Amino acid sequence: MGSTPTKVSPLAPKTYPDLAAIEGVRLAAVEAGVKYADRKDLAVILFDRPASVAGVFTRSKCPSAPVDWCRRVLPSGRARAVIVNSGNANAFTGRKGVETVNQAAAAAEDAFGCKKHEVYIASTGVIGEPLDASGFGKHLKNAGKMASQDGWEGMARAIMTTDTYPKMAFRTFEVEGRTYRINGMAKGAGMIQPDMATMLSFLVTDFPVASDVLQAELSRAVRPSFNSVSIDSDTSTSDTVLLFSALDGRKPVRDRKHAGVKRFSKALGEVLHELAMLVVRDGEGATKHIQITVGGARNAASARRIAFSIANSPLLKTAIAGEDANWGRVVMAVGKAGEPADRDRLSISFGGICVARDGERAAEYDEKETSAIMKRDFIEIDVDVGVGKGSARVWTCDLTAEYVAINADYRS
Amino acid sequence: MGSTPTKVSPLAPKTYPDLAAIEGVRLAAVEAGVKYADRKDLAVILFDRPASVAGVFTRSKCPSAPVDWCRRVLPSGRARAVIVNSGNANAFTGRKGVETVNQAAAAAEDAFGCKKHEVYIASTGVIGEPLDASGFGKHLKNAGKMASQDGWEGMARAIMTTDTYPKMAFRTFEVEGRTYRINGMAKGAGMIQPDMATMLSFLVTDFPVASDVLQAELSRAVRPSFNSVSIDSDTSTSDTVLLFSALDGRKPVRDRKHAGVKRFSKALGEVLHELAMLVVRDGEGATKHIQITVGGARNAASARRIAFSIANSPLLKTAIAGEDANWGRVVMAVGKAGEPADRDRLSISFGGICVARDGERAAEYDEKETSAIMKRDFIEIDVDVGVGKGSARVWTCDLTAEYVAINADYRS
Repeated sequence: MGSTPTKVSPLAPKTYPDLAAIEGVRLAAVEAGVKYADRKDLAVILFDRPASVAGVFTRSKCPSAPVDWCRRVLPSGRARAVIVNSGNANAFTGRKGVETVNQAAAAAEDAFGCKKHEVYIASTGVIGEPLDASGFGKHLKNAGKMASQDGWEGMARAIMTTDTYPKMAFRTFEVEGRTYRINGMAKGAGMIQPDMATMLSFLVTDFPVASDVLQAELSRAVRPSFNSVSIDSDTSTSDTVLLFSALDGRKPVRDRKHAGVKRFSKALGEVLHELAMLVVRDGEGATKHIQITVGGARNAASARRIAFSIANSPLLKTAIAGEDANWGRVVMAVGKAGEPADRDRLSISFGGICVARDGERAAEYDEKETSAIMKRDFIEIDVDVGVGKGSARVWTCDLTAEYVAINADYRS
Repeated sequence: MGSTPTKVSPLAPKTYPDLAAIEGVRLAAVEAGVKYADRKDLAVILFDRPASVAGVFTRSKCPSAPVDWCRRVLPSGRARAVIVNSGNANAFTGRKGVETVNQAAAAAEDAFGCKKHEVYIASTGVIGEPLDASGFGKHLKNAGKMASQDGWEGMARAIMTTDTYPKMAFRTFEVEGRTYRINGMAKGAGMIQPDMATMLSFLVTDFPVASDVLQAELSRAVRPSFNSVSIDSDTSTSDTVLLFSALDGRKPVRDRKHAGVKRFSKALGEVLHELAMLVVRDGEGATKHIQITVGGARNAASARRIAFSIANSPLLKTAIAGEDANWGRVVMAVGKAGEPADRDRLSISFGGICVARDGERAAEYDEKETSAIMKRDFIEIDVDVGVGKGSARVWTCDLTAEYVAINADYRS
């Protein structure tokens, strides 16, 4: 969460999507010198005319000052500007932190000619260090001048901390003969666990939707995406997902049953899923992308708790780093979840190959065949706990010595 | 949990206590070839006359076959023999596992002339591999012949897996002019999290106590000791703590209010605490012993959940490995615990030095002074969450690249 990465994740995508322009939306990224030298670390999204907005935030009991700010302004449902800095989370900064977000919002008001409550703020980076926003006035004015409709990738790069690649995704969909789009970006590579399971994500659509519909759709869509991934079981103080509809003067759809909302909702789910997978694949030190599917649980909530118990087991995650199909550690993690599970009906598969069935090693288990599967970079683990019909799916990555190295050296 | 360690923990004790003889108690360790070559891996404790017994076990929903066995025979309250093997946990071994414990108990019945329900069995090592106990008959007979009153350290070594040193502790206490003792041993270095927070521990006293009194005292004493430590948040399928009173034909104390029980209880608490600390200090890859004290919580249970949230945070544990007093990660871990906490009254100390107070960095914070504290091998973290009077203390170790190396290579 802050140190500049030295090498790109082996799980990085080979190409990045080109996020096309959305009418009335301009972006910029500038060098504000928050922490890093010689890189852009302050980014803005500007809406020429008010956008509607929805947000989902960390459930931490110690949220950052920007999270408090966004929660406070969100009920107005209007947005004109988003300000994001990397390098400092402005978290656990007391009264100073509150002053800093006020100062940043005032600077935006001045630079962009909007109201303070139309400004959304997010910060990511080190926790506990005061954030000096005294230069934000100058930098935001500068950003306002530079902002353009093709600034998406520039911003996706400026919000990175320990991320090794920018995370972007988009979908298009048709409503009444017109093509709309959702552009999304995210950052996050560590301190990732629901809820919310990413540090920061910003999404903009040109489909005109009212804030309350937007909020309902976002709240629903984060569960199987950002809230179903974990890098290290640690939850950030700063997690923020903001979804904007760039109305650009148009009348928004207010009815959740409108045919267009269904298509928008599907596209939103896909963009969030893609971004969530990009976050997992950039997990600090990750060499494996792991999908855990639990079935046969008492209910979906129980399945989810078992799935996260497996996903967060350091012993299983290190085993997978070592390309070892160590199903004993899956048994351990099922056992420690404290949820109903029938040890003697438990079955476990790695990559579709059954390694254990009815509470013991599968008769057909073949070490060589399983080892070949463990060499892949996407590992599917399927577990049936044999007591009911509840199921859940979550994603994580392996735990490597590189994760330790990144996080042992972080502040220095 | 199984591979032979190559170097001793830097936190290992400089000397080992010499556990003195207890009348009527003999021990032995032999080479049974369960997994390791050229080392003893099967140990026994033999009571010349029936001992009373108490036990506490893993709360895993997938307990091992030996745990099931011990739970079944425990209500009889009588023990004549304890059989422990390392190298294979006989966990998740289905019907075969049940047959194996039966076979082992029958072999003990034959070798030692006791009843099957007077035999206690514990196994530690790999999960999911069938354990072949066909040779146990011969090995137990051999052990019976070799058993002696000074076999304590030999057994403490034979039950080691990834442990880098044997774990032993004792206390003596006086009751009515006579000196009694408690001898204890433990093994465990990973997959350590309540409840129970160790793999295996065996304790024997010559103070004559009835099983139900013994059980009450043990159940109480494990909470602030074995149940207050975590190496890696993972809970074993095999955790077993057994406490025996070697009656050796004497009448046991049946009244929990007996003056001697109070002294016994104090000594028991001390032995368990010492063993629990030895387990933490041998945590896989550990270089730091960490004590976390949480105060100001709504109640003790809430304080304990916050303390474990801190103790199990991979990000905090890696920071400490890097000798970084990263209090931001303590804030994060408090926040993610989901328990009542007042961010703006939160204070945090490392080694008695206040680094954060009232929700922000302490004015007197001095990086250099704090860095010096982080170089110690025992790190005390004190947190006050500012909402009430509940407190709790737990212990853990740091998370290092060595932990990953040990566990990524485990089965190979």
